[in-house]
Formats: sequence, C-alpha cells, structure tokens
Amino acid sequence: MQKILFNGSWTESENPASQFHAVNPSIQEEISERAFPESSWEEIERMVDAAFEASEALFELAPGAYADFLDCYADKIEAANEQLAAAAHEETGLPVAPRLAEVEIPRTINQLRQAAAAARSGDWARPTLDTETNIHSIHGPLGGAVVVFGPNNFPFAYNGIAGGDFASAIAAGNPVIAKAHPAHPYTTQLLAELAQEAATEKGMPNGTVQLFYGTTPENGLKLVAHPKVAAVGFTGSRPGGLALKEAADKAGTPIYLEMSSVNPVFVLPGALHERWSEIATELHGSCTLGAGQFCTKPGLVVMQEGKKANDLIEEMSESFSQTPAGILLTGGGLEAVSKAVEQLKDAGAELQVGGKVADTAHFGYEPTLLKISGDAFLENPAALQSEAFGPVCLVVLAKNFTQMKAIAFALEGNLTGSIYSDSHGGDEPSYAELAKTLRTKVGRLLNDKVPTGVAVSPSMNHGGPYPATGHPGFTAVGFPASVIRFSALHSYDNVREHRLPLALRKKNPSGSLNRLVNGKWTTADA
Amino acid sequence: MQKILFNGSWTESENPASQFHAVNPSIQEEISERAFPESSWEEIERMVDAAFEASEALFELAPGAYADFLDCYADKIEAANEQLAAAAHEETGLPVAPRLAEVEIPRTINQLRQAAAAARSGDWARPTLDTETNIHSIHGPLGGAVVVFGPNNFPFAYNGIAGGDFASAIAAGNPVIAKAHPAHPYTTQLLAELAQEAATEKGMPNGTVQLFYGTTPENGLKLVAHPKVAAVGFTGSRPGGLALKEAADKAGTPIYLEMSSVNPVFVLPGALHERWSEIATELHGSCTLGAGQFCTKPGLVVMQEGKKANDLIEEMSESFSQTPAGILLTGGGLEAVSKAVEQLKDAGAELQVGGKVADTAHFGYEPTLLKISGDAFLENPAALQSEAFGPVCLVVLAKNFTQMKAIAFALEGNLTGSIYSDSHGGDEPSYAELAKTLRTKVGRLLNDKVPTGVAVSPSMNHGGPYPATGHPGFTAVGFPASVIRFSALHSYDNVREHRLPLALRKKNPSGSLNRLVNGKWTTADA
Repeated sequence: MQKILFNGSWTESENPASQFHAVNPSIQEEISERAFPESSWEEIERMVDAAFEASEALFELAPGAYADFLDCYADKIEAANEQLAAAAHEETGLPVAPRLAEVEIPRTINQLRQAAAAARSGDWARPTLDTETNIHSIHGPLGGAVVVFGPNNFPFAYNGIAGGDFASAIAAGNPVIAKAHPAHPYTTQLLAELAQEAATEKGMPNGTVQLFYGTTPENGLKLVAHPKVAAVGFTGSRPGGLALKEAADKAGTPIYLEMSSVNPVFVLPGALHERWSEIATELHGSCTLGAGQFCTKPGLVVMQEGKKANDLIEEMSESFSQTPAGILLTGGGLEAVSKAVEQLKDAGAELQVGGKVADTAHFGYEPTLLKISGDAFLENPAALQSEAFGPVCLVVLAKNFTQMKAIAFALEGNLTGSIYSDSHGGDEPSYAELAKTLRTKVGRLLNDKVPTGVAVSPSMNHGGPYPATGHPGFTAVGFPASVIRFSALHSYDNVREHRLPLALRKKNPSGSLNRLVNGKWTTADA
Repeated sequence: MQKILFNGSWTESENPASQFHAVNPSIQEEISERAFPESSWEEIERMVDAAFEASEALFELAPGAYADFLDCYADKIEAANEQLAAAAHEETGLPVAPRLAEVEIPRTINQLRQAAAAARSGDWARPTLDTETNIHSIHGPLGGAVVVFGPNNFPFAYNGIAGGDFASAIAAGNPVIAKAHPAHPYTTQLLAELAQEAATEKGMPNGTVQLFYGTTPENGLKLVAHPKVAAVGFTGSRPGGLALKEAADKAGTPIYLEMSSVNPVFVLPGALHERWSEIATELHGSCTLGAGQFCTKPGLVVMQEGKKANDLIEEMSESFSQTPAGILLTGGGLEAVSKAVEQLKDAGAELQVGGKVADTAHFGYEPTLLKISGDAFLENPAALQSEAFGPVCLVVLAKNFTQMKAIAFALEGNLTGSIYSDSHGGDEPSYAELAKTLRTKVGRLLNDKVPTGVAVSPSMNHGGPYPATGHPGFTAVGFPASVIRFSALHSYDNVREHRLPLALRKKNPSGSLNRLVNGKWTTADA
C-alpha cells in the first residue's frame, strides 16, 4: 500500500477504509502494482491538526520563505520531468510529448515560479498604510489548512499538490492538504515527494504540504467543514463541487470552485460569410484537442441559420468524422460523456456525426457534433447547455440575431464566451448588442478566437459567474490575482511599529513594494 | 400609506401584504402619522426586473457618471442635514447633536464622496494589461441588482440607500434595491427621495435606486436567490444573516454579511498594573457609547485574575452604575439584550451591576457588567461569547497567561480584537504569543485602544472571519477596498481595442489611472 504524506513524513495509512488502484486508460486496465489507501476520518483529522500547527509556524516566516520553497519545488519538478511525464502518461493516457513533458510540466513549473515571485514581491497583498489614523492593512494567511481537490484532466498544472490552487495557497502563507485525484494518484505521490523534499530543504514547518489519496464522500464533506480548515479549492464536476460548496458554505468556509462550463462561441453573420471554413477548422481543433477534456472546450456554437451555417456544419462534421477518438481519462468520464450526449439528444439535439463509444483499446468516444434550432434550444436551455466533458459540440442555429441574443441571455455562468465578427466592421452593431449580454455571463470574453488555451497571465480570468465557479470576483489562474483567494484582510489599528508586518512599517521593505500610502500607490517609504 | 420607490417613480404599493408604523423609542410609542407597506412578492419582483434593466444601461455609462451621481446625492444630504437628523432622531432616539447632525450624516456624506472618488479614479477595479498575450482584465459591474439590507443602529452611515454597501455597489456600477430597516423607514424614505432626485438630475437610468420598506421573511429569502439579483449586502443580526446566507449560497449569489461580534479586549498583566484605571475608563466609555449599540462594542474583556483586575472591575462597576440607561433603538432590541444577559447568567456569568430593564420612558437597559472565571468560560465558550447588542460587557478572569491564550483560541471570528500592553516592553513576549492567535480570529487588531470608532480609511477592515462576516477577505468600510465586493472580474482576450473599456485601452484614460501593465504597476500608456 502506498504511503500518505502526513506532517512531514511518508506514513502508512492507518486502518484505511478501503483501497484502490489507478487505471491505465490507454488499455483500460488497472495498474496493479500500487494500491492507494482511502483514509479514515481519524487520519484526515490528524492531517488537519498538523496543518493547523503548520499554519501558525508559517505565519511567523517572511513571505520570502514561501517563495524559496516554491522555487525549490519548481526546480525539482524540472529535474524530474522525464519520470513525472512517464507516470502521468501511464495514468492518464496523455501523450508524453508534447503535452506532458513540453507543455504541462513547464506550465506547472512556470506557475510555481510566478507564485514565488508574487510571494516575494508582496504586491498581491495590497499593503495599505494610513499614517494619519495609524491604521494599516494587508492581506495575510488565513490561519488553518487550505484543502485542494484537483481535477482529472491536468495531472500537473491543476494538481492539488502542484497546480494553481496549491501555488497560490502557499504563496499566501497557508499549508495545503491535497487530495489526489483517483485518476492519477501515483503522479501525485511523485509530486508530493518532491514537494516534501523541497519543504525539508527550505526548512518549512512539518505539515506545510500533506497528501491523502481518497476517503468517503461523507469525510470529504466533514473535511471542508472542519473548523481548522480555512479555505478550499476544488476543480471538477458540478455535482461534486456543489456538494462541497454546500458543506463549506454552511461552515462559513470560503470555497473556490471551478465546476463546469460550455464556453459558448457566437459566430456573427459577417464572420460566417467571410470565413466560415477557417472558423470550422478552429472549432474542430478546439473541440477535439485533448479529446475535448478541457474546462474551456467550446461545447456550444451559436450562429444564424442559412447556407453558410450549413457549410460550416458540414465541414465540421467532415473533420470530426475523420478525427480518431482520443484517450479519455477515465471509464467514468467515458460513461459521463455517453450519458451527456444521450441527454442532449433526448432534449432534441440532432446528431450530425459521432455519438458512440469508440471501438478502441483505450477509453474513447467518437468526436461528436450535434445541432438544434434556436427555438428548440430556448425551450429547454438548461438541459441543452449541460457540459459533456469530451469531444462533443452542439451547434445552435438561431433564426435571427434577436434569437442569438435570447440564447446568450438564457446561458448560465461560463468560464468563457467567444464572439466571431467580420474584419470590416459589418458585425459591429450586433457585436455591441451581444457582448453586453455575454459580458455578464462569462469570466473571459474572447474575440475571433477559440477559448482553449489558458495563458498564465496577470490578466487571465479563469473564473466566471456561478455555476462556472462559486464567486465571479476571482480567478484560479494568473498571478498575482489568484493568490488573494487564500487570504484574509488583516487590519492593524494603532499597532506598535515594531509589531507590524514588515510590509506595513514606515520603511518600504524591498524599496520596490507597491503600497497604497495615504491614498496614493507608491514604492516610497511612508 | 407611504409610497415605494420603483423604477424611478414614487409609487403606491400594490396589494401590500400588511403595513407597519415606526416606533419612537424615546417614548415607546408608534409614530402613527405614516404607515409603511409590506410589499408583495410581485412588487418585489418588478423591482428586480427594473434593476436588471438599469444594470444593462449602467454598464454603458462611464464610471464618472456613477461618481457624479454619488457626489450630487452627497450634496443633497448635506443640504438636508437638519430635516434628516430630525427624522432620524424621532425614529431612533439618537441625539441630533452631536451624533446625527455632526457625526453620522457628515460621515455618510464623506463615504459617498470617497466612493465617488474611487469610481472616478478607477484604481479599485485593478485594470491589468498584458500586451504580449493581448489579454486584459478589469473588475466590472455584476450585471443585475445589488440588494442591501441595512441595520437598525446607523440610520445614515449603513442605511441600505445611503451607507457603505450602497455607495460601494453604485461605485462599481450596479443598481441597488434597498430594504428600509423597520426602525427608521421614514428617514430611509427621505434619503431615497434625495437619491432619486440626484439620479434624475444626473441622468441615471430608472431603477438605479429603488426602495421598499418590508416584506415577509420568505420573500426576503426568495429575493436574495432571484437569478437577476447579482449580490447582497446585509448588516444585522446573526439569525437573519444566516438565513439570507443560506438562501444566497444555494443560488450561488455572493452575499456580504456583517452579523455579530463581541470584540474581545485582552489586557495583559503589565498594562493592568500600569494603568488599570485609565483602561477601566476607556472600556466603560466604549461599552456604553450609543447605549452599546455598535457592531464594535467590546462585549468581552479578558485579563488575569488578581488585585488589579478586581480594582478594574470595581471601577468599571462604579462607572457603569452611574451611567444612565441610554435609548435602545427598538423594543425588540431591548428584549434581545435582556435575553442575552439572562443567557450569560445561565451560562455562569456573575452579575456585577445592572442586569435589568431600565425604569425609563424610553427603551432602556441598565449598563451591565458581568464576570466569569476563565475555567468557566472555557467550559462553555459558545454561550459566553454570544453578542448582547446593548451596554453589556462580560469580564473573564483567567487564572494565568496560558489560559488567556486558550480563551483567545476559543473565540469565534470577530470584527475586532484589542490587546492592551504596558509601555515598557514587559508584556512584549506575551503580546507576541497572544497576537499570533488573535490575528486569525479578527479583522482588525488593535493595540492599547478600544474598538468603537470605525475610521473610513483605505486601511480599515470592517470585516473579519466567519461568523462576524461571511468571508474574511473583504471590508464593508473604506475605499477603494469595499467597492471590489460588488464586482465581477472581466477578462478580455483578443478583444479589439475599440471595444475594450477605456481603462484597458493602450492610452491611460486619465493619465493617472494605476494599471498593472505587463506585470508592473504604472500610470503610463501601455
């Protein structure tokens, strides 16, 4: 049985409720050599206690210490790229190159380093000084554990022990308890080994990083409601996210969720006329990339009916039918995609191509295109915008622009929304109308571009209105913005100068820290 | 029957479920000349629809328009000071001078003007440009109504139609639906009249500001869960706040709550020795100011037992007993204080002075001091830290410093926490130990100072961990920080330059807007 990472040590799980094996999705077979424990409540609670102690010790450290740890961890991942990519490939079927070794692992390293830079600069914490009232404030650690549940589709970049939630929680000075995703527990274990090595080398308190592999759903709900758990990060399915949200909300614990999104793409008439074929190619690429298993995969394309729309659908159908079914991450995922397609059909969507489990050695579903009229969509918008997490796309043919707007209005909150318009300004009035509605429905509004590809930029919003996430004000990707999620606002009123955090003392600690001093942003001393 | 403010017009309430009168707490009599309607669900839903339409129109306006409206409204309040103070005095019993006319109304005006300045400058929205990826982001309006429930204790500064939540929601570009507090509906009506006049003068869309006076609790829960309600602000009791929170959480709607706080004050041994008498005076003042009806009233004082502690208690008892019972805002509030004191006594607190409804013409409760041992406190910390919203204070006598720390650890989330220490550094080691624990329990940490008095400063945190509020990362007071609560993060990916909000275009729109451009904060063009 694989060991859990508890309070600084790799430890045998005590009385695990059960055990599980990862599955190699490329051959649909269990990886029998390693069994992973499902931890008991007692074991999880011991981790929470250890994390709480770590949180007190972390608060005593300077933010540079968090940064040193993150950088050291990033270096170790970089050095272990080959082994990590091999493990993740076995557990996820994602190609070693370019995806894992050349894209996702470098992205993960980059995120950890950006988080380190954010921690080191301290700008993210918005230090605010008011010398007249002698009240100062800064965002600081929460005091307690941050629990991170990573998703199945990014074994590195969103991993609970290495991804954006992890990096931003640590950058803010919090300990992390990660739950491995059952689709890639060994990859996660390898990451946690590197994380613990880095923590030890950099003198981080025991319990700064901890890992368990699984537990019962009931224990998951108890965990997020535990008084020593200060915040939660979750990326995954809507039902799982909503259950955790309910438990966390009831306990008053901030929870940051990324749950589901169909990432609507609107193609305005001028764009359709001008470049329907190019757009078809882009959409096909975006829908089938990574077997459609991206949170930002466009699952809904809306355009006005007519000849060009039919041409676009025909071209998409052609390219979908010629695309081999990629590897889906899990058997459960395959079932969920099948079920989602059936639901779309039951709600009136008409199958153009695909619609079947693929006849492959791996978990696979045929790239699937469906279509429906705008009238029919508007009769049942809830069912017709449920996410199918795979290579599935529904085209909605609106009868006119007014109906396109009505469709936009009927959308739930999404991570992204795209509008394609022509290059000559003919679509401009429609763009303005449509963007007004779509803006309030999405976190990231795109022009003339598919939504897959989430740049790690300070200006990224990987977030959006409910139910895409749990709060429209935060992003899960990008620094420094994502760090603030895992912080509390700490005001210091009349606190003696030598007791203040360095960032709030008169002297600017680095000479370059951006602070709001008496109402003006400045790097000067106060 | 008084009219509601619906979609730009003062309108007769249609089929109100019932009606109510305000009560003059100075004489415990209904103010019979004005009856206020309890709105039906249909009426409330019409307001929500109107607000939603207003939100679309507001999004088209430049932020300077929100600022102009707020400034104009502030001017009107300033001009109407006398009439407003008189109305509020009748409904709340708060003195016209200095409290209403000289302190609270000027504070309200100041807040509205600070909110206007924040809207005008635009810094609050954190414009972020990344020219390499061509992704830009900024915080923008939520798209929908912000519903604000104001409290009983500040008829102006926290009023749903004039206070901090209102000002920050408008500054972020959202329409507001305010529910008047039933303790001061006429004051609220007068404010809303001025708000609507200002909205009309400044050409704000109809439905930017709306007011109703009451409805059933069920309708309140439906309102916060309405899909066109984008966020909620609530200041009031914990049971009311928790009920709204549950409904809003379930709907995925951000809700900002300020619910309850006992604002613990810890007096370290050196400070007790050095200046127990001064501290007793400060505590007495802070506990009885405004008849103890402040969210930041110190309801819990913790110190080590001994002679000086007894002296302090004796001096506080003496001054409490000599202080006349101030006017409580409502009969319900008086009942709640009585009940809270009984509960403290039931939980083992020993009455020192007070503990009775005052024999006065007004709603009054005798200034009340109780004490309890640290041992007893730790046996039942939940009951012994429940808020008594009036002139009530519980002193906890710890047997040693370790027990003081244990008491700090047993605290729920609070708005504030104070530590008094000596001036010579003798308490320094204890301070460090205690502050570490207290820091994570409170929004604002004070030194040598009582917590009443909440400066409207950029560095203020009028917030704190649950259950003081619903999220530890936000403040309800202070600009620009409080504005961000009522915004969504809007990212623009590859959006054409002329379609971007002005603040995200290459040229810095004001020349002084602080923007994060390619990772550096600057006021330069991008």
